[in-house]
Amino acid sequence: MIHNSSDTICAISTPPGQGGIAVIRVSGAGAFTVCNKIFRPARAFPEGEGRRGASPAFGRIFRSDEILDEVLVSTFHAPHSYTGENVVEISCHGSLYIQQEILKLLLANGCRLATAGEFTQRAFLNGKLDLSQAEAVGDLIASSSAAAHRIAIQQMRGGISAGLANLRDKLLHFTSLVELELDFAEEDVEFADRKQLKNLASQVETVICRLAASFQAGNAIKNGIPVTIVGETNAGKSTLLNRLLKEERAIVSEIHGTTRDTIEDTVVIDGLMFRFIDTAGIRETRDTIEQLGIERTFRKIEQASVVLWVIDLTGDTQESVRLSKEILSRSEEKKIILILNKADKLTTNELSQKITTLPSGEGWGGAIVMSAKSDADLSSLERALVEAANIPQIGENDVIVANIRHYEALTLALAAVRRVMQGLDDGISGDFLSQDIRECLSHLGEITGQQLSTEEILENIFSKFCIGK
Amino acid sequence: MIHNSSDTICAISTPPGQGGIAVIRVSGAGAFTVCNKIFRPARAFPEGEGRRGASPAFGRIFRSDEILDEVLVSTFHAPHSYTGENVVEISCHGSLYIQQEILKLLLANGCRLATAGEFTQRAFLNGKLDLSQAEAVGDLIASSSAAAHRIAIQQMRGGISAGLANLRDKLLHFTSLVELELDFAEEDVEFADRKQLKNLASQVETVICRLAASFQAGNAIKNGIPVTIVGETNAGKSTLLNRLLKEERAIVSEIHGTTRDTIEDTVVIDGLMFRFIDTAGIRETRDTIEQLGIERTFRKIEQASVVLWVIDLTGDTQESVRLSKEILSRSEEKKIILILNKADKLTTNELSQKITTLPSGEGWGGAIVMSAKSDADLSSLERALVEAANIPQIGENDVIVANIRHYEALTLALAAVRRVMQGLDDGISGDFLSQDIRECLSHLGEITGQQLSTEEILENIFSKFCIGK
Repeated sequence: MIHNSSDTICAISTPPGQGGIAVIRVSGAGAFTVCNKIFRPARAFPEGEGRRGASPAFGRIFRSDEILDEVLVSTFHAPHSYTGENVVEISCHGSLYIQQEILKLLLANGCRLATAGEFTQRAFLNGKLDLSQAEAVGDLIASSSAAAHRIAIQQMRGGISAGLANLRDKLLHFTSLVELELDFAEEDVEFADRKQLKNLASQVETVICRLAASFQAGNAIKNGIPVTIVGETNAGKSTLLNRLLKEERAIVSEIHGTTRDTIEDTVVIDGLMFRFIDTAGIRETRDTIEQLGIERTFRKIEQASVVLWVIDLTGDTQESVRLSKEILSRSEEKKIILILNKADKLTTNELSQKITTLPSGEGWGGAIVMSAKSDADLSSLERALVEAANIPQIGENDVIVANIRHYEALTLALAAVRRVMQGLDDGISGDFLSQDIRECLSHLGEITGQQLSTEEILENIFSKFCIGK
Repeated sequence: MIHNSSDTICAISTPPGQGGIAVIRVSGAGAFTVCNKIFRPARAFPEGEGRRGASPAFGRIFRSDEILDEVLVSTFHAPHSYTGENVVEISCHGSLYIQQEILKLLLANGCRLATAGEFTQRAFLNGKLDLSQAEAVGDLIASSSAAAHRIAIQQMRGGISAGLANLRDKLLHFTSLVELELDFAEEDVEFADRKQLKNLASQVETVICRLAASFQAGNAIKNGIPVTIVGETNAGKSTLLNRLLKEERAIVSEIHGTTRDTIEDTVVIDGLMFRFIDTAGIRETRDTIEQLGIERTFRKIEQASVVLWVIDLTGDTQESVRLSKEILSRSEEKKIILILNKADKLTTNELSQKITTLPSGEGWGGAIVMSAKSDADLSSLERALVEAANIPQIGENDVIVANIRHYEALTLALAAVRRVMQGLDDGISGDFLSQDIRECLSHLGEITGQQLSTEEILENIFSKFCIGK
C-alpha cells in the first residue's frame, strides 16, 4: 500500500454521481506540470511565482485541441496544502462523463489513480497530521450524527494526541534516567526518583483509564446504538420503525434535496444515531419449531444494546408476554423499552383493565402506552431511546475514544503501566522497569503514529477511507 | 420561480451523498456577510480589499462556539463570478452531517435554499450567459456520451447564438427600414431593397433549415438512441443486453470507483449513447391472446429507432420467423439488426444448413451470426448498432440543435421566413412583410432569450436543473 510517494496521484474527491460541480484533486511533485498540460487559463499566469497565493483560475480543460470543459483551478504549493505536496483542485461541471474524461486525461499525462485514503496518508507521512488525526478525517466524513461528528472533530484537532503527549514525554524522560542507571549498574546509583515515577505512573494510569472507559460510549456513538424491535407479527413493529425513520427521512430530504437510500434503518435522535437490527426472524417464532425460532431471535437481540418490545394491546397480551418471557430472560443486561401499542383502539376503561392483566414484577416501570400510528406519541419513545442508550453528555472539549485500534492500544498500555506500578511496589530492578515503561510508551505511540507503524497497520487504516480523500 | 433576486441563495453543488469533500455555494449581495458570520479564517484577512483575488482561505466553520468543520473558502466578487453576484464556495469535508449542518447555518444566517438551476438562472438574468448557453449548462451536466457532451459544450460556448446573431441583426435592420417606409406610406418610398431582403431571407432560411435538420441527430444523441431487443424467450435477449451493459459497467467502475446504478440499461458505444427499451412484453406474445401480445410488443418497437431481432439458431427458426414477421412488418422505417444467436452450439454444417432455411427476401443482408455469450462477437454487434444509429460524424465546430424548445422555435421561425420570401414574391405590402419578419425575429430571439421569455418558460427551463447549479 505504501506506494512510491514520488508518484503524482489523482482522484475525484466529491461524492460519486452527477451534480452541479465535481472536484478532482491532484497531488504530488508533478501536479502542476501534469495540469499545465491539459489546462489553459483564460488569462495567462503572471511570470515568476506562478500561481502561488492567487485566486482560483478560470479556464479550459483540453483533450487534444477539443475543449472538454470550462473549469476553476485552485493551486496549493508544497508544503501549504492538505497533503503537504503540490496540490491542484480542478472544479469541473459535475457530469459523470466530464469527471471520467478529466481523470483519464490526468492518467494519460502521468498521474496515477489514488488509492483509498492516499491523500490523507500522504498528509500523515509528510507530518501534516498524526495518525489519530488522519484516522479522524475518515471518521469525520463517515459521521452522521452530532455526537459522532463532535468526537471526530475533537480527534482531528489532536484531542487524543494532546492528552497523551505531555505524559508520554515525562515517561520517556524517566525511562532514560532508569536506563542511565543501568550503565552505572556497579555503582548502585538511582537517577530516577522512584517516588516521582510512581506518582507519574499513577497519573498515566488515570488518564489511560479515563480514555479507555470512554470507548464504550464512543463506539456506540460512532457506529450507532444497536436497537432491536421484538414482538409478534402485527404488533406494529414495522409501523413503529417506519414512523421513526420517516421523521428522519423528511428532514434529510428537505435539506439535501435527495433521498438517503444508502443509509438503511438508522435514525438520529437528539444527536445520537440509533441503528436498527433486522428482526425478520422473530416473525417465524411460532411458525417454525419454537426453540429454533427463539434461538434465532435471541441472536438478534444479542447484538442490540436496547430492545424495543412491542405488545399489541388489542391482542392476547397474556400469550404475548409468555412467549416473550424466555427471549427476554436471556438478555438481562440489555435495556428493554416496553411499548404497549395500539392504545388508540381501546377505551380508557379497556386500557386500564388490559394493563392490570400484565404479569407484575417484570419491570414494566418505563412502559410506554402509545399508538405507533400517531406522531403525538413519538416523542416519549424517542426520549426513552435516548435515555436507554445511556450515553453521557459529551462536552466540546471531552476526549472520547471511538476507534477500536486506539482502544486496544490503550488497553495494552494500561496493562504495561500497571506492571510498572506493581514493579515499583515490588522494588524490581531497573532493567525490568525500563522494559515495561518502554512497552507502555510503544503502545501509546501506536495511537499517534510516533511509534512507527507497520505497513500492514497503515494499509488497514487508510483502505477504509473513500477514494479522493 | 423568478424569486426576489436580492435574496442570497445557497445550495450543495456537488453530487448528493458522502465523499471526501463537498462544495456549498452561496450567491447574492449578502454572500460575504453571511459567510463571515460562520467562518473564521486561520489567518486574518488583510485590510481594505478584503479577499479579492486571494487564494482560497483555510479556516473553520463555527456553530455558536463549537467548531463544525475545517474548510477552504473561495470568494468571487461581483461581477467576476459564475452568477455575476458575490459568490462564496465553501469546500468542506464530505459527510452528510457536515453538509447539512453548514447549509442549516447558512439558512439560519439569512440565506435561502436555492431552487433547481437558480445559480444559472441568475447568471442568465445578470447577462453572464444567454438562454441557450444557460440551457447548455444543464445539458452538459446531464451528458453521458462524447457526442452529447460535444453538442452541449458547443452550445454553452455560444454556438447556436453566434450562428444566429449576425443574421438576426441584419433582419432587424431590414425590418426597421420596412417599418420606416410605413411612416412615409403616402410618399411610396422603398428604403429596404427588396432584392437584398430576398437574398437575406434566403440565407436565413438556409441556416434555420440546417439547424432544424440537425435536431433529429441532436435529439438522438442527447436522449440516447432508442433500441428494442425483440425475440422469443430464451433466444438470448437478456444475455445479449447484459453483455453490452457489462462491458460498459466495467469501464465506468474502473475509472470512477463506483457503480452506475442510477443509469439503467444505457450503453455508450463509440461515443454514442444507446438506450434500451424494456421489452418484457414480448415474452408473453405466445402465452396471452396472440394479437394482444403482438400489439403490446409493437408499441415497444414503435419507440425504438433500432430493433435488435434475436433468433435462436438452436430453436425452431421457421416458427420464430413466422411469429416475428407480423411484428416487423409494421415497423418498416426502423433499422433492424438481425442476430442469429447461439452459433457456438452448431457445427459449421448445421449452421449453413440453418441459414439456408431462413425465408429469403427478408433483407437478412446485415444479419450477424454470433454467440451472445462470447465477447469476441460483441464488436461486430457494436459496429452494427453505431451504423444503424446513422448519426453523422459531428465536428468540433458543428452546431447541432438537441433541445426541443430550440427546435420548435426554429420551426416557427422557418415558417415565418418562408412567408417573408413568399410575400416578397407576391409583392405584398410593407406592413405584412414587417409582421412576418418580426415574427421570425421573435422566434429566433426565444432561443437566446433576447426576446424576453415569460416567467413560465424560464421556470420550465431551470426547474430541470439540479439543485446547486
